[in-house]
Amino acid sequence: MVLLGVAGMGLADPPADYASVSADYASVSAVGLFVALMCVCIIVGHLLEENRWMNDSITALFIGFGTGAVILLASSGKHSRVLLFSEDLFFIYLLPPIIFNAGFQVKKKRFFRNFMTITLFGVVGTLISFTVISLGALGLISRLHIGELELGDYLALGAIFSATDSVCTLQVLNQDETPFLYSLVFGEGVVNDATSVVLFNAIQDFVIGDISSVNLLKFGGSFLYLFWSSTFLGVASGLLSAYAIKKLYFGRHSTDREVAIMMLMAYLSYMLAELFDLSGILTVFFCGIVMSHYTWHNVTESSRVTTKHTFATLSFIAETFLFLYVGMDALDIEKWKIVLETYSPIKSIALSATILALVLVSRATFVFPLSLLSNWTKKTPAGKISMKQQVIIWWAGLMRGAVSIALAYNKFARSGHTQLPSNAIMITSTISAVLFSTIVFGILTKPLIRLLNPPRHVSREHSALSEPSNPNTFLEQLIENSDADLENGVSLRRPSRLRQLMVSPTRSVHYYWRKFDNAFMRPMFGGRGFVPFVPGSSNESSIPLLAGTEN
Amino acid sequence: MVLLGVAGMGLADPPADYASVSADYASVSAVGLFVALMCVCIIVGHLLEENRWMNDSITALFIGFGTGAVILLASSGKHSRVLLFSEDLFFIYLLPPIIFNAGFQVKKKRFFRNFMTITLFGVVGTLISFTVISLGALGLISRLHIGELELGDYLALGAIFSATDSVCTLQVLNQDETPFLYSLVFGEGVVNDATSVVLFNAIQDFVIGDISSVNLLKFGGSFLYLFWSSTFLGVASGLLSAYAIKKLYFGRHSTDREVAIMMLMAYLSYMLAELFDLSGILTVFFCGIVMSHYTWHNVTESSRVTTKHTFATLSFIAETFLFLYVGMDALDIEKWKIVLETYSPIKSIALSATILALVLVSRATFVFPLSLLSNWTKKTPAGKISMKQQVIIWWAGLMRGAVSIALAYNKFARSGHTQLPSNAIMITSTISAVLFSTIVFGILTKPLIRLLNPPRHVSREHSALSEPSNPNTFLEQLIENSDADLENGVSLRRPSRLRQLMVSPTRSVHYYWRKFDNAFMRPMFGGRGFVPFVPGSSNESSIPLLAGTEN
Repeated sequence: MVLLGVAGMGLADPPADYASVSADYASVSAVGLFVALMCVCIIVGHLLEENRWMNDSITALFIGFGTGAVILLASSGKHSRVLLFSEDLFFIYLLPPIIFNAGFQVKKKRFFRNFMTITLFGVVGTLISFTVISLGALGLISRLHIGELELGDYLALGAIFSATDSVCTLQVLNQDETPFLYSLVFGEGVVNDATSVVLFNAIQDFVIGDISSVNLLKFGGSFLYLFWSSTFLGVASGLLSAYAIKKLYFGRHSTDREVAIMMLMAYLSYMLAELFDLSGILTVFFCGIVMSHYTWHNVTESSRVTTKHTFATLSFIAETFLFLYVGMDALDIEKWKIVLETYSPIKSIALSATILALVLVSRATFVFPLSLLSNWTKKTPAGKISMKQQVIIWWAGLMRGAVSIALAYNKFARSGHTQLPSNAIMITSTISAVLFSTIVFGILTKPLIRLLNPPRHVSREHSALSEPSNPNTFLEQLIENSDADLENGVSLRRPSRLRQLMVSPTRSVHYYWRKFDNAFMRPMFGGRGFVPFVPGSSNESSIPLLAGTEN
Repeated sequence: MVLLGVAGMGLADPPADYASVSADYASVSAVGLFVALMCVCIIVGHLLEENRWMNDSITALFIGFGTGAVILLASSGKHSRVLLFSEDLFFIYLLPPIIFNAGFQVKKKRFFRNFMTITLFGVVGTLISFTVISLGALGLISRLHIGELELGDYLALGAIFSATDSVCTLQVLNQDETPFLYSLVFGEGVVNDATSVVLFNAIQDFVIGDISSVNLLKFGGSFLYLFWSSTFLGVASGLLSAYAIKKLYFGRHSTDREVAIMMLMAYLSYMLAELFDLSGILTVFFCGIVMSHYTWHNVTESSRVTTKHTFATLSFIAETFLFLYVGMDALDIEKWKIVLETYSPIKSIALSATILALVLVSRATFVFPLSLLSNWTKKTPAGKISMKQQVIIWWAGLMRGAVSIALAYNKFARSGHTQLPSNAIMITSTISAVLFSTIVFGILTKPLIRLLNPPRHVSREHSALSEPSNPNTFLEQLIENSDADLENGVSLRRPSRLRQLMVSPTRSVHYYWRKFDNAFMRPMFGGRGFVPFVPGSSNESSIPLLAGTEN
């Protein structure tokens, strides 16, 4: 603080309340260090962009880990981090912008076309994964003689390691290169998150021998309630923002207010979901989808450019911060000390290896059978998942991330339990498994995708590939891919309704949705082509704008 | 937290660690409440935009105050706020975006042309104001018999109430309507902030009877050191960001990374200043100026639109949050209870009234004499401050804000001292004075400016007036006003150098600076016209883009 800091500068001794000064100093230096490291991450990430192994998450993890090691050495082995891992920080500040941006930028049509498959993978797949990991842990980890682990601990391990890392998935799969896989794996990640959190909470209150049908029914009911009410809340907040901006701001646009309202309403939807005990992640994801479909078209041209890039930038900053943080957190020296005092290093490695093996096996046990099931229901070859794609889906969902760490801290590091060696080893093993899966599996993902799914050399695709973040290409693609589909599809490729229903029920649902959207939703909430003429926000001016700046 | 919250939903009783759950719940609900209130503030502020009395700060203050009252009633008089006033929150998170944005959007040429006057007002004026308030407090407040107040307390009052509220000034003065006054009053506010913080710290370590010439010299030295090193740090960070983006990103632009780097570097400059015990406010202000002069021209078109609006939006959100917070904080019921138990209400009112009177008088004692002095040095009538303008400068700087509250809490509410009635009454009086000055002086400012300085009915000026935040007008104006000045001025209005030196030394300094800028700085760090051709960032495409979207 300048207020306190300047005092010690040249005029006098430090003030009496020294503790308070050093606390402020510590928080400023911690935040400052993180900001500086994020700058380094962005620059290094940019320089390594062409590198076929690395991605931004792994760079940030390495830099965080390296900084943690330096701090550990500098403090002579006392501590390795400047901020404690806090669930609040993670769930209140870092996760919402990442998931909201994912919903805002997702290709809506593809997401909804694969909705059934996504739900199948996200719900049934997660339950299968949970069962396999829990049973495996019960069978294998109990032989390692780690200490007093109860049935509840094994079940918790199942829930912790069923939670895939949707953030890392976003980084290794490219929406433009592999759109089908991206929507499947990322969509699964969002649904998976809700499932594993419900599972984790169900397990925490699990009483052994109480697997009655009533409890299973309760579990199913609470999951359905959570899923639908979270979605409803997200959609409602998105529509409210669209309606408010359409009604209030028309003819008197103010970019700053529009951008602020969009940011705050999105965040509010997350907060409300958390307050109502729902899944904020699902809510904010659907809020993002609705905002990009309605609200985004009601604002001025410059608000549109600003929101697109601001949401992407905030999400990028949150991701970088998160991976730095996890990397720095890996050297949680207190827990490592307890573990090394109690157990042999071999036992530690064995535990982490067992967990990783269970993750690999459990994901295989649901990806391949469920893909078969999904292919069996599809009549056309377009929606089928090929064997190569199945392997990529299996592989891309192997990474475990901050959600696993947060759940593990929640289960094993509650106040009072931290000193137990069996709890400490669970945390260090979780951290090891997360680091190993993110780094090793993550590094191998890009080459694997290239091997199994070589990039097509179409000039359009290629230009999007070499400049993935070029704003103009990106916005243009957004308009082409999502909106052109939604708009022109109606008039251009409209077969007879009866034939449609026979060919594909999903496509037919989509057709009726578009009809409803055009007849009722867009006139009410605005959206592409349904906003009265506003200077700078019209369709006509936006296309030449984008085209003009591209050359 | 969804993690903890869902557990209580239908499956079982709340988990054992109830305290932790409620803490999480409290922080989520506090943040959620603030986000919801900010949405309300933005909408109400938009609806009241045409109102001649209100502005966004006063709206937010009222809404915060109202919410505080509702919470107070709902909690049966126990507490009125959901977040404690924290200096950290204010100085680490809220102030930097506001001041950075001010530097980023300020009209550079005007600011530097008035630099001497601004420094005169900001440094000498603040010292005069401090002396008058301290002496007045010593003479008047000591007669109120409030309790054990020492000389140090009176001096602290002087420093606390010398700190003007630059945030509120930004809201009542319009850069487009009254550009000269805006640059004077706002520029003074930034310098004033640094001065009053140095003063405050000097006073905290003040030993009575120790007013030696050595100490005065020390004070002057530390002020100069603070001023120049803070400015240097800000300029250096800005240049570093310009250089990094120019060197690294050329030909391979990534909007998200560019925007992220600009945001993080700006924040880093503030954090570094705080760590080095400098004035973060000065640093981040100059970093904003340098970034808008160099860095902003090195990035893509969409990054430019995004940063302009993102910085403005973040600043707008921080301001709204701040005034909500101060409004809610006004009902600090603990302190009011102590005050009402000890003193008669008349004494309370008398103290606040005395403080307000001292603020009014002390500002008058430096604005009018220093304006005379400034006018005396100016040869041309253009730079002279008219009597009407002097009255507006006097009035617009009367508001006291969050800096005063933060300093008062720092002085009178340190742990252990809070229960002293004399400390409690100082805090409640500070809050009363801040509220009164912001609301009453703030409400009267707009009409006063209209009365003394009626808006000119030039069509250009008028359109900017009715749509102050219209992005296109705004960007266009920015290019016209700041850059066209800096660029074309060289070739169009270049008189002989000798005559220039005689007419105005400031203008001559400006001429040599432009020469240096064009010959060395811009080729090195980029800037308008000095960035090699990049798709989407060229001069040629940016003008039709802005012009095209305006009609």
